Amino acid sequence: MLSPPFDYSLLMPGQIRFGWGARRHVGSLAATLGRRVFLLSGSRALTERGVIAELVDELDRAGLPVITAMAAAGEPVVGEVDRLTQSWRDAGAGPGDCLLAVGGGSALDLGKAVAALLPQPARLSVRDYLEGVGTGAQLTADPLPLIAMPTTSGTGSEATKNAVISSYEPPFKKSLRSDRMVPRIALVDPELTVSVSPTITAHTGMDAITQCLESYITRKATPIPQALALQGLKLALPALGPVVQDGTLRPEREALAHAALLSGIALANSGLGLAHGVAAALGIQAKVPHGLACAVMLVPALHSNLAVAESPLAELARELLPRTPGSDHGAASALIEHLTALCAELGIPTRLRELGVARDQLPALVPASHGNSLSGNPRAVSDDELRDLLESLW
Amino acid sequence: MLSPPFDYSLLMPGQIRFGWGARRHVGSLAATLGRRVFLLSGSRALTERGVIAELVDELDRAGLPVITAMAAAGEPVVGEVDRLTQSWRDAGAGPGDCLLAVGGGSALDLGKAVAALLPQPARLSVRDYLEGVGTGAQLTADPLPLIAMPTTSGTGSEATKNAVISSYEPPFKKSLRSDRMVPRIALVDPELTVSVSPTITAHTGMDAITQCLESYITRKATPIPQALALQGLKLALPALGPVVQDGTLRPEREALAHAALLSGIALANSGLGLAHGVAAALGIQAKVPHGLACAVMLVPALHSNLAVAESPLAELARELLPRTPGSDHGAASALIEHLTALCAELGIPTRLRELGVARDQLPALVPASHGNSLSGNPRAVSDDELRDLLESLW
Repeated sequence: MLSPPFDYSLLMPGQIRFGWGARRHVGSLAATLGRRVFLLSGSRALTERGVIAELVDELDRAGLPVITAMAAAGEPVVGEVDRLTQSWRDAGAGPGDCLLAVGGGSALDLGKAVAALLPQPARLSVRDYLEGVGTGAQLTADPLPLIAMPTTSGTGSEATKNAVISSYEPPFKKSLRSDRMVPRIALVDPELTVSVSPTITAHTGMDAITQCLESYITRKATPIPQALALQGLKLALPALGPVVQDGTLRPEREALAHAALLSGIALANSGLGLAHGVAAALGIQAKVPHGLACAVMLVPALHSNLAVAESPLAELARELLPRTPGSDHGAASALIEHLTALCAELGIPTRLRELGVARDQLPALVPASHGNSLSGNPRAVSDDELRDLLESLW
Repeated sequence: MLSPPFDYSLLMPGQIRFGWGARRHVGSLAATLGRRVFLLSGSRALTERGVIAELVDELDRAGLPVITAMAAAGEPVVGEVDRLTQSWRDAGAGPGDCLLAVGGGSALDLGKAVAALLPQPARLSVRDYLEGVGTGAQLTADPLPLIAMPTTSGTGSEATKNAVISSYEPPFKKSLRSDRMVPRIALVDPELTVSVSPTITAHTGMDAITQCLESYITRKATPIPQALALQGLKLALPALGPVVQDGTLRPEREALAHAALLSGIALANSGLGLAHGVAAALGIQAKVPHGLACAVMLVPALHSNLAVAESPLAELARELLPRTPGSDHGAASALIEHLTALCAELGIPTRLRELGVARDQLPALVPASHGNSLSGNPRAVSDDELRDLLESLW
C-alpha cells in the first residue's frame, strides 16, 4: 500500500489561523509576535475597500502601533526590496517588532524578503542573497517574525520558505530562500478573495492545483505534503470552475484558499517540477503572469512525466475521479484528461504564442527554465527536449 | 464530497525532522534553538544502550554544553516536575538555553512541563497551572524552546501542546496546556523504537490508532488533522500486527513512528473522545497503562458513537479496507469489526476486570472520565450512560 520515503524534514508555519472573517484575529495574533507592527499592503484596492483600516483598527485595539507601506504593482524587484528595507530600517524596525504582509503572492514575497533582510548586520542588497545570481551571502540573523495574509488563492506563499524576486535588466527571477523564512503565522481569510476577478481566480487557482500535482509526483515527495496535496486537489478541482463563474460562492472560496495554503506547505517541503520551471522562465522572459503560465504548462508537463509518474498519478486519479480505468496508465491518463477539460472550461490557452511569446524568445526560455523547480521533476529534462517541448507548444 | 469545517486554528511544531538515524542531526538542530542544552533522558535503558552518550557527543560537536537529568519511571507527577524545574533553575537554565527531551510520552510530557515552567517569573508549583485542579495560574512567559525526541510510537506528545501530569494523593491526571507548549522541533528517529517490547509496541501503537480515529470523528475535527489522521491510519493499521511479531521490521517501525507523530498533530488540534476520556480515568484510578486503556476502550467507544459518526467512519472504512459494504452503516461497522480483529490479534483484553479494575472502582471512574478528551466526543455522554457502559465492560 502506501510506502512514502520515511526520511524527511518538514517546515511550516507553527501557527495557522483560517476562516471567513479571520482577519479580526490579527490583533491578538500580532501581539504574540511583537510590540509594533510594520504592515505591508499589497494593493491600493485593499485600502479602498477598507481592509487596511480594519486591520489597523484591530492592531490598535491590541495596543500595537502600526507603520504602513504599500507594494508597487507586479512581482517584487530587487530595487523595491532594497528600498523598503532601507525605509523600515530608517523607521527603526528591529528585534521586538513584527511584520504583517497582506496581499497576493507578490506582496507576501516582498514582505518575506524585507522581514529577512531587516535584521541582517551586513547591509547588502537582496540580490547578494539570491540563488544563482547572488554573491553567496547568507542570512546570519533570524528574520523578524511575519504574519502572512493572502488575498488570492494561489501561490501558497503564506506557508513557504522562499520569496521570488525579479529583475528585468538583467532579466532573472530567482529565490531568496531560507528555512528561517517560513512565516511564523499564516492568517488566511477567504472572505478577502471574494473580490478577486474571474481571470485572476482562474489563474491563481490553477497555480495551486499545479503546485499540489507537481509536489505530489516530484522526486522529493514526502508523506505529510502528499497527504495535504491530495486534500488540496480534492477540494480545489471541483471548486475552481464554479467560483470562476460566481466569485461570491463561500464554500468554494474557502476550499480554494485552503487548497492554496496546502499547496504552499507541499511545495515548500517537496519542491515542484517541469511546469513551474518553465513558468518561471515565461514570467521573466515574456512577462506571462505566473498562474497563467502554470496553467498552460501543467498538462504538457504531466504528459512529459507520464511514463515515470504513472503510479502516483494513478493513485491520485483513483482518489479524485468518480470512475477510473483499472490500469495505472489508464487511470493516470484519465486524470490528465480531466485537467485538460478543466483548463478548456476556464479558457486557458494551449499555445505559447497566445500568451504573447514570440518565436525568437523560445531559445532564451530553455536555460531560464532550469531553476530550483525543475530540479525536483520526476525525471531529468535535457535542453534539447525542453527546446522541442517549447517548439511544439508554441 | 469533502466539506470540512473551514474555520480552524492549527498549531504544530514549526519543524519536523524524521528518519532512521535522524538523531545524528540533534547538534545542528539544537544549535538553532540555544547555546546550552538541558537534556532530559526518559530511562536508564537509553543510557545503557549508549543513546544518551551519542546525543551528548553530537551536541558537543556542535559546540553546545549539556546538562543532563533522568526522569523517574512512570508518568510524571507534580512533585517530580517541581523538583526538576527547581534543579535546572539552580543550574541557571533560562533564556538562550534550550531543552531536549528523549523518551516515551511520559518523558516528553515532563520535558514540556519543565520547559514551560522554567522561565515563569512566578515560582509556583505545576499544580497551580493544571486544568481543573489548579489555581488558574497562567503561563505569562514563553516556554524555553524544546526538541522532543520520542522513543516509543504512541502518544504523539512530540507534536502536542499539553503535558499530562498525575498525582496519586489526591488522585488526578490533568493537563498543563498552552498553545505555546508545542515543541519547537520534533526529532523522530524510528530506529530508537526497535528495542521497544512487543507489549509496549502493541499498547502504544493502539494509542496512536485510537488518537487518529477519535480525532477524525470528533466534533472539533478540522481538515488538515483529518488528512493526517487518515494517512496515519493507512500506515499504522497494516504495520502494527507484523511489528509486534518482529520488532526489527524497519518499514513498519517507520510507519508507526510517523503515524504516532500524525496522531499527535491531529489530537492537539481536533481533540479526542470517549475512549481517551475513560482511559485517563483508568490510568489514574486503576493505574492501567495509557495505551492499553485506549486499546480496550476503542471498540466500545466507536460502537457508542456509531449512530452519530456513521458518515466519517464510513469515509475512513472506504479508504482503509479493501472491500466495504455500500451503505454508511455497513462500511462503518466493517471498520469497527476490523479494529476488533486487530485488538484480538494483539491480545488486548476486552473486560475491565482483566486490567485489574475492581468492581467497586467503577463509580469513581465516571466523574474521572469527564476531562478535556470527552468534551470533543461526537455526542454528549451522560453519567448514567457512562456507568452502564463501564458496568457492561467490567
